[in-house]
Amino acid sequence: MLRRVLACLLLALCSVAAHAAEQWGVFEVELKGPADGNPFVDVQLTARFSNGAQTVEVDGFYDGDGAYRVRFMPPRPGRWTWVTHSNRWPLTNKQGEFTATPPKPGNHGPVGVRHQHHFGYADGTPYKPVGTTMYSWAHRGNALEEQTLKTLATAPFNKVRMLVFPQTAGIDKHPPEHWPFAGTPPANWDFARFNPAFFRHLEQRVGQLRDLGIEADLILHHPYDDKREWGFATMTREQDDRYARYVVARLAAYRNVWWSLANEFDFIRTKTDEDWAHLGRLLQRWDPYGHLRSIHNGKRIYNHAEDWITHVSMQHGMAATEASRAVLFREAWRKPVIFDELKYEGRHDRRWAQLSGQQMVHAFWATTIAGSYGGHSEFIPDAEGLIWLAQGVALRGESPPRLAFLRKILDAAPAEGIDPIDAFDDLFIAGQPGRYYLVYFGDRAPTEWLPKLYLTGLRDGQRFKAEIIDTWAMTVSPVKEPLQFKPQGRYDFVAPNAIKLPGKPGIALRLTALDTPAGPGARPAHDD
Amino acid sequence: MLRRVLACLLLALCSVAAHAAEQWGVFEVELKGPADGNPFVDVQLTARFSNGAQTVEVDGFYDGDGAYRVRFMPPRPGRWTWVTHSNRWPLTNKQGEFTATPPKPGNHGPVGVRHQHHFGYADGTPYKPVGTTMYSWAHRGNALEEQTLKTLATAPFNKVRMLVFPQTAGIDKHPPEHWPFAGTPPANWDFARFNPAFFRHLEQRVGQLRDLGIEADLILHHPYDDKREWGFATMTREQDDRYARYVVARLAAYRNVWWSLANEFDFIRTKTDEDWAHLGRLLQRWDPYGHLRSIHNGKRIYNHAEDWITHVSMQHGMAATEASRAVLFREAWRKPVIFDELKYEGRHDRRWAQLSGQQMVHAFWATTIAGSYGGHSEFIPDAEGLIWLAQGVALRGESPPRLAFLRKILDAAPAEGIDPIDAFDDLFIAGQPGRYYLVYFGDRAPTEWLPKLYLTGLRDGQRFKAEIIDTWAMTVSPVKEPLQFKPQGRYDFVAPNAIKLPGKPGIALRLTALDTPAGPGARPAHDD
Repeated sequence: MLRRVLACLLLALCSVAAHAAEQWGVFEVELKGPADGNPFVDVQLTARFSNGAQTVEVDGFYDGDGAYRVRFMPPRPGRWTWVTHSNRWPLTNKQGEFTATPPKPGNHGPVGVRHQHHFGYADGTPYKPVGTTMYSWAHRGNALEEQTLKTLATAPFNKVRMLVFPQTAGIDKHPPEHWPFAGTPPANWDFARFNPAFFRHLEQRVGQLRDLGIEADLILHHPYDDKREWGFATMTREQDDRYARYVVARLAAYRNVWWSLANEFDFIRTKTDEDWAHLGRLLQRWDPYGHLRSIHNGKRIYNHAEDWITHVSMQHGMAATEASRAVLFREAWRKPVIFDELKYEGRHDRRWAQLSGQQMVHAFWATTIAGSYGGHSEFIPDAEGLIWLAQGVALRGESPPRLAFLRKILDAAPAEGIDPIDAFDDLFIAGQPGRYYLVYFGDRAPTEWLPKLYLTGLRDGQRFKAEIIDTWAMTVSPVKEPLQFKPQGRYDFVAPNAIKLPGKPGIALRLTALDTPAGPGARPAHDD
Repeated sequence: MLRRVLACLLLALCSVAAHAAEQWGVFEVELKGPADGNPFVDVQLTARFSNGAQTVEVDGFYDGDGAYRVRFMPPRPGRWTWVTHSNRWPLTNKQGEFTATPPKPGNHGPVGVRHQHHFGYADGTPYKPVGTTMYSWAHRGNALEEQTLKTLATAPFNKVRMLVFPQTAGIDKHPPEHWPFAGTPPANWDFARFNPAFFRHLEQRVGQLRDLGIEADLILHHPYDDKREWGFATMTREQDDRYARYVVARLAAYRNVWWSLANEFDFIRTKTDEDWAHLGRLLQRWDPYGHLRSIHNGKRIYNHAEDWITHVSMQHGMAATEASRAVLFREAWRKPVIFDELKYEGRHDRRWAQLSGQQMVHAFWATTIAGSYGGHSEFIPDAEGLIWLAQGVALRGESPPRLAFLRKILDAAPAEGIDPIDAFDDLFIAGQPGRYYLVYFGDRAPTEWLPKLYLTGLRDGQRFKAEIIDTWAMTVSPVKEPLQFKPQGRYDFVAPNAIKLPGKPGIALRLTALDTPAGPGARPAHDD
């Protein structure tokens, strides 16, 4: 250690001798290097971080004005050393070390896939996405953006889908202050030179989401250049690759980043499926932390079986209206499914933005019962024409408080997630066999339910606490008597006492086991 | 030619000098060769067929008693020459030629994928599958098998799913006369020696199906060795591969063969997904004609995106109950989808065989509207306990006449197939935009319909003939006045006159254009 500090002082072999960073925080090294030529293209810079047991190699990036940075998200606490490599003398063989401190409260690390169809933070905390979309919220200037952050602080959302590149909608009244490339709008760009100010601003916003406990589902490409004038969707493969690598180098150390290759990929008619697979595999290779990767469709669904895809980011309003529909995508790909776009709550003349608040809340519950997840946004213009979908700023719909209510229920549900219970016929019950059930009646509005559950995991005589959930009124009403189940026929367990229900739509039941469930021996044979 | 005949006569360079075979028929060469050792393993034999423009290389096979055969399905009429290659002198460099005559009536060639989601014969005739399953019909002895063939001759089915290996069910009363390997049941097999008599019998049955115009969806592996005693599901990969190659060598020249790698693949717990993909790719390589290839699931759905899979062979009763569900698999994989198992019409204590005739017919119509296809079978035991699902023999259910009625409707529909029209919301209309529509009301039993169609392909003022279809009573009733459509709002065309409907379940409408449709310019923008 002393020797290394001396080396630093004497030989300037490092610019950062030793400081601290949180586990899963952003540790950053700043280096001075050449500013001539085109550093974005000419200079390669990587750094290798090691704690003795684990080595992580990350890309550095040029941040303008002769400044180079290397960012690292320590996956473990403790002492880490680093050394750089570059094709330029002033940037290579720089070394240093630092200590990663344990994560502060609220820092659970990056989110990954858990239990095949669900998500969890790196520290083991389950993550149940209740996401929203605000495409251009970070392109609208500080005044609006800070309002958006205030709104998010009390909103139910723990994931935001957002564009890297600006979109056309809303741009007349609130043009972006920064653009991603050197040059001037609309089309005078040097795609070989990034605009560091643009990315610093984006990072600030991503960091603020992180500090609010919100995942940033960053959309790298989109078709919303309505006049086809900027050219971000018609870059060459080399330009696309460089852009993606620059974004990864800058942002992968932010623990709350997810990579969404595109929004409505099939509406970007300048790229083929092979282009997307190529880009997805590059992200898989370049991102040393394996942040979640997905691609979101318009009308044509991508092949989500491809191995670089960690979870399904689905647009499908029709499938999200019913658990029996939504579950089929989960079965098709055996990955987590998020219906990131299931139509929007709104008052728009386009049919994709005409959901009532009730319909939005219903779709979230239906996708929950399907063992998958919903996604919110709204298209309800204010007096100025601002909409949450494009700008963020303020929520005006009726669904958000009900989504907050749902999120509380999800957070209290089993850590393994909510899985469909027996989708052999119409699916309306989900949970964890023998332990926890949500029974969701949707539009059927029954006045009572005769308790009947598929047998897996249940024990003869097992008792359950029952609660009636009004998904719209946001109430949880306990049923007085516990339910006691016994086997009936080949497939079911039943409890004798019918549960009275309020006879209106959007009612659910929550059943929580009071006794231990049966062992795996109770599982029926494969052929039912 | 004279020279070749002379060569044959003088040098015995060929066993078959010149004879005729139909295009898409089976041309066969018989050669005498070694019977010592194990010819199934020791002897390699291939033949190259050429018509000058096209060359096809096929495997030969050992048929016992020193007899070797090479079978070839001529893909074109005209003169074909052939030459063999073998690692045994008596079998190599045999040569000959023959003339493939034009196909006889009823011979349309093999079936392949057409229009992405549909099927057609090689001669261009559309093929609309209305299939059934009779797993072991060809293992039940000549008396029963001939009854089955008689039943099939007047049944609606143009595809049969059938096992190569015997299954346990029904075996006590009707044991197989032949077994696929040398040896004796239950477990005394030499997996390195096939039993030619077994395969000759199978071929006879496949050929009889062909002559009835029925495709044979041959299932190579299954989990129905209930006592786990025969060991056909626990062969080594080498044994599995040799078995598949032998089946291909014997049967690929039958134009009506489809390859189904497995029934309920996931219930065969001795093989992994990688094993199936391996086998699928081998079939793709070995079958020179590219017969259709699929794999059928139990509860866990296979990754149908794999490129060796030509179409989705789906078991999913729940998804087949509604077009809005069934269509999602089509969207997921963008291949043809056949719901080969959508539960069975029957009276069984298991819930997978309890469909009423009405439910079976409904599922066929629902999958049709989804732009996919249904699959029939029944579990209605006769006095002796025989069921169609396992033995064939006789049909006892109520659905077959209604499936014959549906098949007539499908055969009269556009050659391009029936595709969903706008699945943005609940899907109940399918057809070809601007030309032909089926509107299927399922269980909703309306008393009238206000004609409304999604705009694509429609022309202002375009007229349609309307007919009311009763899918159960099997009637088609013309609506007197033609419908005349005009645009309404952003998405629809409407006609003013409400159509009176009988207010019972299972009613459909068929709309056939009386005027030419609009051009592709009428297609709406991508964002609806």
